[in-house]
This record gives sequence, structure tokens and C-alpha cells, in this order.
Amino acid sequence: MVTHSWEIKARISRDILEKSIQKQWLLPNDKLPSPDRTNVLNVPRESGILTERELEITMTDATGLVEIMAKGTWTAEEVTIAFLKRATIGHQLLNYATEFMAEEAISQARNLDTYFQSTGKVVGPLHGVPISTKEMVSFKDRILHTGYVSWISNVAPQDALIVRILRKAGAIFHVRTNLPQTCMHLDCDNNITGRTFNPHNIKLSPGGSSGGEAASIGFRCAAMGIASDIGGSIRLPAAFCGSYGIRPTTLRTPWSGVGLAGAGQEGIRCTLGPITNSLRDLDLFMKAVTDGMPWAEETSLVPLPWKEAPLTRDFTLGVLWDDGMAHPHPPVQRAMKMAVEKLRAAGIKIVDWQPYKHDHGMRIISDLFYPDGAAAQIAALEESGEPWLPLTKEAFVRARQMTVAETWAVNLERDAYRSEYRLLMKQHDVDFILCPAYVGVAAEPHEARYFAYTAIWNILDMPGVVFPTGLKVDQELDHVEGGYRPRSLEDVVEYKAYSPDKFVDAPIALQLVGNRFCDELTVAAAKVVEEVIQS
Amino acid sequence: MVTHSWEIKARISRDILEKSIQKQWLLPNDKLPSPDRTNVLNVPRESGILTERELEITMTDATGLVEIMAKGTWTAEEVTIAFLKRATIGHQLLNYATEFMAEEAISQARNLDTYFQSTGKVVGPLHGVPISTKEMVSFKDRILHTGYVSWISNVAPQDALIVRILRKAGAIFHVRTNLPQTCMHLDCDNNITGRTFNPHNIKLSPGGSSGGEAASIGFRCAAMGIASDIGGSIRLPAAFCGSYGIRPTTLRTPWSGVGLAGAGQEGIRCTLGPITNSLRDLDLFMKAVTDGMPWAEETSLVPLPWKEAPLTRDFTLGVLWDDGMAHPHPPVQRAMKMAVEKLRAAGIKIVDWQPYKHDHGMRIISDLFYPDGAAAQIAALEESGEPWLPLTKEAFVRARQMTVAETWAVNLERDAYRSEYRLLMKQHDVDFILCPAYVGVAAEPHEARYFAYTAIWNILDMPGVVFPTGLKVDQELDHVEGGYRPRSLEDVVEYKAYSPDKFVDAPIALQLVGNRFCDELTVAAAKVVEEVIQS
Repeated sequence: MVTHSWEIKARISRDILEKSIQKQWLLPNDKLPSPDRTNVLNVPRESGILTERELEITMTDATGLVEIMAKGTWTAEEVTIAFLKRATIGHQLLNYATEFMAEEAISQARNLDTYFQSTGKVVGPLHGVPISTKEMVSFKDRILHTGYVSWISNVAPQDALIVRILRKAGAIFHVRTNLPQTCMHLDCDNNITGRTFNPHNIKLSPGGSSGGEAASIGFRCAAMGIASDIGGSIRLPAAFCGSYGIRPTTLRTPWSGVGLAGAGQEGIRCTLGPITNSLRDLDLFMKAVTDGMPWAEETSLVPLPWKEAPLTRDFTLGVLWDDGMAHPHPPVQRAMKMAVEKLRAAGIKIVDWQPYKHDHGMRIISDLFYPDGAAAQIAALEESGEPWLPLTKEAFVRARQMTVAETWAVNLERDAYRSEYRLLMKQHDVDFILCPAYVGVAAEPHEARYFAYTAIWNILDMPGVVFPTGLKVDQELDHVEGGYRPRSLEDVVEYKAYSPDKFVDAPIALQLVGNRFCDELTVAAAKVVEEVIQS
Repeated sequence: MVTHSWEIKARISRDILEKSIQKQWLLPNDKLPSPDRTNVLNVPRESGILTERELEITMTDATGLVEIMAKGTWTAEEVTIAFLKRATIGHQLLNYATEFMAEEAISQARNLDTYFQSTGKVVGPLHGVPISTKEMVSFKDRILHTGYVSWISNVAPQDALIVRILRKAGAIFHVRTNLPQTCMHLDCDNNITGRTFNPHNIKLSPGGSSGGEAASIGFRCAAMGIASDIGGSIRLPAAFCGSYGIRPTTLRTPWSGVGLAGAGQEGIRCTLGPITNSLRDLDLFMKAVTDGMPWAEETSLVPLPWKEAPLTRDFTLGVLWDDGMAHPHPPVQRAMKMAVEKLRAAGIKIVDWQPYKHDHGMRIISDLFYPDGAAAQIAALEESGEPWLPLTKEAFVRARQMTVAETWAVNLERDAYRSEYRLLMKQHDVDFILCPAYVGVAAEPHEARYFAYTAIWNILDMPGVVFPTGLKVDQELDHVEGGYRPRSLEDVVEYKAYSPDKFVDAPIALQLVGNRFCDELTVAAAKVVEEVIQS
């Protein structure tokens, strides 16, 4: 058998990962879940590797952790070790990590503890919070490959700006997480680290592109995570893995030091944002980032501090039941209905929201993704000769190479579409839109491709928050919808992708979307919605 | 002699202009200034057409006008008529208008007066303020040609967003103003309206591209004006005509309904901003615009309200004496020295500021102006067959046609340059940069081409305020600089462009530049600088 040169290169990264794993925290063979077990969420508790206290630590959200560390009840070191243990087990089960940074993390935690012991104060709002980070975010002197084998030659000259800001706020970076080839799939597989699994059901994809990150947060390998989103890459995997996420309005979070092929493309921007285990942690993360004033270094950013918004029920929710292109699967429909009933009962104003030219919006975003005909991505693939994964091929088929003037025409269509959508919301007095995060609850490996429930908000640059409803797929309730007649080939494909037995234990998430730059209001509204639907 | 079809089309616009002039306010032939008189600023006073009260009205800035109208001392109607009279004389002398809108203006003023009489209140912060508007800004059912003969076929479907917002704030629009062919010259001449003259010296250009607007404000044909700037087009003509102007940070003022060839190009953005007769009027204008929340309609804008900044002398001024490419003319040098001496004496911290790669910055902006090889502009010219003016040819020679990927590379250079410049200012603790607005005080017709003293701040997207120093070219003091050895051919050209006798009566302006989105701080600092240097 021939070993290709790309395989040799990929092994460099895998070796780094392998060496970085703290072997003492791995599950012994006799503790490994049986091969037919799909839901592995409870393995840490069963493993005996984490103490009760460590289990409690890892089940606490970041806001809670900082509160408890600020009282001196838990130390940063024990918090870091607890999460490192869980993160190690998580990787063993889910293959979500690309690299652990245990020594630096523990050393940094000790420094925080020393500081706390001598001053009685936390160093900042993220004091001792273990954060996992999508691989595309730079760490000094470490490889930055973004899912391309050829990029394994890239060693980052410095930490990404967001890492520097959050570290200064007290964050601890202990693990980097997997992403798909090209970083442009809704799945999480590549030729370097391979496939990441969904902790709720390892037969399912964790979603993508921030699949490693969502698996990390879903399994509680970290208290929060840094992800990115250009078409759904924060929200969709967060939804698949039962976590929370926000794709903020673009230009609110820094981008310096993030690797993505096609840099300099500005028609549709990718943006960093958090995946967390609570809504309040979205505020915590965003406030820490903007308090670091990233715009003083990355001048293209907008200097808007994060101002947590007051909670109120005085808003109108437009409900997008179906985007008119791909019909949501039964569990998603059930969650939407449950949410709307409870919200209406709670006195929140609800109106139906008709999708406004979502097909047009999706055509625009497709044009803007690869206006160079995906030449940047293809060059990065061809440099190593690594094979193209199926979803890479599917994405590139949609790429339309354009002239400069053609991109301008699409920019104008985009801006006109944004203004029309905004005007329509204003005319209907709609403040937020409640909608699915995805056509279904999750997807099987290589099968996540429908992204219009998230990407439509990217092209509109409207912030979107996803949150779990507390519901899971129910084999009794969520039958295949009989008699539904799909409206297109795409609709047929997504309709056929569902059957309840494929999605055992999958959590059901929803999405709340607000107006551009109204990120704080959208998080606040999501808190109200969550409170109502969890009640 | 053959009449070309483009001439017939151009005449449509000229006829509209001609018909719109209120003939009763024109100077009779015996009151016209003698042909050898260059400075026409005093003609309104000599004309007998304006009463003393009307002269006083037209010499009052917008803030002052609103204060006086709010007391009921002056009515909106008499203010409007006073400015219309002066505007009519101004056009007779300077050829700066493309169209008067006298009837609508007077009718609107009467409505304001009725409102005031019945409520005792002004309708808004711009109650009764006559505003002149650069032709590229749409007015419903009126032609929008932006200096292209072919575009005379364009009739605007609605008022531009900025017009709608300011009208709601009480503004009165009485005259539209001239701009150069393509709207991309530093001069003000086209094949439709022809050349506009500088009121301080009609042998000089008023600058451009907002030359008609600067002539209007310099001659006080309006209390303030709407102009645009992509490389100096607000600041340079304001400087030439002795007025004030700010090019705000991009995405703070609306752009909807403004005509410019190459729409959708976003690598370097054009932005609207005011030309005024006082610094406080810059605040008045910008606050009225942002209070209209243009981002609720034009969603690409940044939702930053205008917050007037407190006055303080506690800042550090970097002084850019010379950009290293074109050596400032003697009067500009004299004004810079005077300013720096007084500022230092007033206790303001002053450091010399070395130009950081301004040649590199100018190469970037040149690339970004016409990445389609100026195809959009050329198409607009060729559609009518109108002749190309010399500065059009010069501009297009610099156009480099690029691929989409090449534009991305330039975007990255731009962002890197911005970050480096910002970091350098931070390292030197420099808050603002004081510099020339132009290599000289003005230019002769067809000779304004050096724009690096303004355009460098466009590529950096740093807000720039220009203000008159109160000095004028002095035949005794401002001799040609003997012994200066130009550093390049460009420097030779600009060096030779100066001799004191060419620039009789030309006002000397300077420019103050602040960090991106620090527009309010920059205006406040300019107020402090003005107070010191005028003392």
C-alpha cells in the first residue's frame, strides 16, 4: 500500500494531538461504553475518573464558575483539571480535539490562584474559565490548518486577538477542536483528525463547521467555546449538540489571527462567537470580548460595547414555521408548536412570519461564498493532494466564478434584500423571529447540507441565538409526517432524511433572530423565551 | 457646426437650471463685477438685492439661525428667501448650481412658520435651515446625473435617505450643486453645467468633487451643505473655499439614493458629510442625521448616535508637516507653523508625526478606486459619447483591472495598513494628527490632482475635519520657496504649481484627523485648535 505524502503530513498533526493527551485520564478499556451504546453523555459520571466535585464543576456554566471561584470555594487549578479530565474522556469518545494544551492551562490556572490568594480578587470576568477553541483560531507557535492538510505547514506567529483578549480576562485555553475540510461543511470530518461524533448519539454528526466545538461544549469538556459562523457554523452544531450559541452581528468580534481560505473576501463575512451551556454565558463571553476593545487593534470592527439588555415580555415574535423550501422535521415542528403555545399563553405577542424571498437570499449568499470559483479553497486542497470529501465537492459545484463588477452587483442585491427584510419586519411590528435552527434535529454523517434556516440570517446579517428547548426526539410522538408532498428535490431529500429511529436522544433546539446590531436585545429575548418554554 | 447628441442631452439639464433661476434676484448688468475682479465675496453686500437683515441672516451659521428662529425673531420664510437671493447671485458669479428648488423651499418654509406660530416650537433641530445639496443626492422626480451626460435620463424615484431625514428635522432644500465629470476629480467641471468658480478668487478652482457645494457654502448661498468624500471631496473643496467640513468615518451617514458609478464597490467607500460655516454646525448636521436612525432603513450602517464630545486640551497632537511625497506650499507651511506655535504656547502636547508608508497607502486606494479598470465610469461616459475631460483621462490611466482574488489581497493590505497606523499612533500616544488639507491653498482649473493629504485618511478610514485658519495667502510673506529640491516628478509638478500671485485672497485651511469612529472627539479637538489659533 502506498502512503501518500499528504498522509505523512496529516500524521504530523495527529502525532501532536496524540502526544498532548493526558493518558492518566483516559478511560481504561473495561470502562469504554459498549459498541452499541449511542448516548455517551453519562460516561464521565460512570467512569470514576472524575470526583463528585469535579462532576459538579464541569456541570456548572462559566458565569457560575467565576462566581464560585470569586468566593474562593473552587480554585482555578481544580476547575481546569476537572475540565481537562472530562475533555480527555470526551475526546476518547467523540474525537473532537485537535490538540490539548494541558500544561500551559494548568500553569496558567496556578498563576490565577496565586493572584487570587494574594489579592482576594479575580483577574477578570473570565477568571479561571476553561475555554475550548475551534482549530482555525491561532495560538502562538502552534499549527493552524483549518482543515487543510497543506496548511499543516502554517505555524501561527502569535495568538489570535480574541485569545489575547480573553486570556487577559482570565480565560484558560486547554483544548483546540476539530472542524471539517475547508471549514465550509455543516459536518465535521477531515483528512487530518477524521470525524467527530455527537455526544447525544454518536451515530449522528455533531454538525459543523464548529462540530468539534459543539461536541466539546455539549459534553462539557469546556465551560464555553470559541466558534465561527458564516452560514450556520456556530448555531447549527450548537443545536445538534444541545448547547447555546450566538452568531453575533458581523464586526463585533475580532477576526485577526483566524485562518480561512479566501481571506479578504468581504461580501459575506465570517464571524467568531461563543458556544455555551447557558444564555447568560453568551452575555459573559460577548461582554468580555468587547470590553477588550478589539477595535483599537482591528480597526475594521465597530466600537460597540456589549450592553446587557433588560428582560421584558413586551415584544412581538414573528414565527417562521417553514421557510418554504425545506419542510421542518416532525420533532422540530413539535418544539415550535410547544414554544408558540406557551409563549402565547404567557402573553407574548405572536404573529406568523412568512419567509420573504428566502430562495433569493440563499442565491445571494451562495454567490458570495466563492466568487473566485472557490479557487482559494481548491488551491489549498491541491497543494497537498488530499482527497476531497463529498461535502467539499457539493459545495464547490455551487461556486460561480465572477468578475469584480459581478460581485458588486451581488453586493447591491444583498443590501437591497437586507433593507427590504428590515422594512417588512417594521411594517409588521415584528421585533424577533422564532424559527428552526435546522430542518431537523441533527443529521447523519455526510448528510448535513441544508443550511437556509441559519444562512438566511447571515446574508441578512441578523444576530441569531440557538437554544435547546429541553425536548428530545420522541419515538412515540415524532413519526414521519404522512401525506406531506415535498415542493422540490431539495425538499424530498430533507423529507427523506428523517425517521425517528435515526435520531434517538437528539435534543431539539430552536433559533431566535433579531435585527442587525441588536445582539443584546436578542439574547435578552431568548432568555424570556427560554424561561417561558421551560416553565 | 455639428451639434452632437450628447450636447442636446446636456441642454436638457441646463434648461432645467435656467428655468429654475429666480430672475428677479439676478444682478443687473450694471451691477456685475468688473471682469478683472477676482474676489466676489462682497458682491451680495454691494448688490442692493439683499437687505441688511438678509445679509445678516446669510452670514449666520445654521446653529445660530435655528436659535433665532426658535425665538421667533426670524421666520423660516425670510431666512429661505434671504439665502435664495444670495444663492441666485452666487450662481450668476460662480456657476455652482445645477438646479434651484425655490418654490418648494418657500412653500416648505411657510409650513414651518405655520407650525411655529401655532405651537411656539421648532419642528426639529434644523428648523428652517436652507441646505444646498451636491447633485449626486436624489430628489424625487428630478434628474440625477452625477456629472455624466448619459445619466440625464435618470429620474430619481424618491428622495435620498439623508434628504428625508434632514427634511423631517426641518431642513429646507433650495438648491442642488455642481460636481465634476465622473464625480472623481478634485476640480469642478463637466459637460453639463460647465465649470464652477472659487468665490475667493474666480481664477481658481473651488476644488472637488464637491466644488459646487463648497462654492455655495463659501459664498453663503446656504447655511450648510451635503457633500461626499471618497478621497478628499468634502475636505479639499471646503479648504479651497474657506469653509468647514468633516469626512466622517464611513457607515455613519446614509448612502441610499446617492448616484456614483461603480455602485456595490466596497473596498473603499464614499461617504456623505457636511460642509458648513462653523465647527458647531458639523455637530448639528451629524447629530440630526444620526438621530434620524438611518440604520433602521439602510442596514449596512453602524448604529452609533452622535454624542457631542466635551472640550478638553488634554490630548496629544501629532504634526504631519510634509507627507514625504509632495512638499506643502509656503502659505500652508506658514499656517502650520503659526498653528503649532500657538498650540504649544497654549499647553497642548505636540509631537512631530512622520508619515508612515503614505506611498503604500496611496497605492492601495488607487487600486481600490477602479478595480474594474474604471469600466463602470467608462460605460457611463461612452453611453453618451461626451468628451473626456483631462482629469478623467488622468484618473483612468491609474486604473488597474483586477480579478476578484486580487481585490481580496488589496483588502488585506488595507486592513493591515490601518492596524499598523493605529498601533503606531498608540505607541506614540498621538490622539490626533494636524496636517495640511492639500499641498497648497487651492489649485488652478484642471490642475488639482494631488490628493494624498486627504485620501490617506480615506484609506485609513479616519475622520478628518478641515477648518480655515483665518489666514490668507500673503504676497509679502508667502514667496516661492527658494532652494527646495523636489523629491520626485510629482513633487516637481506641485512645487511649480505655486506662486503667490496665482493665489491672491485664497484662504488657508488645515486638517485635523482622529481615529476611526472617533468623529465627535475629532470635532471637539478641532474646536479647541480653532479657538487657540484664532486667539
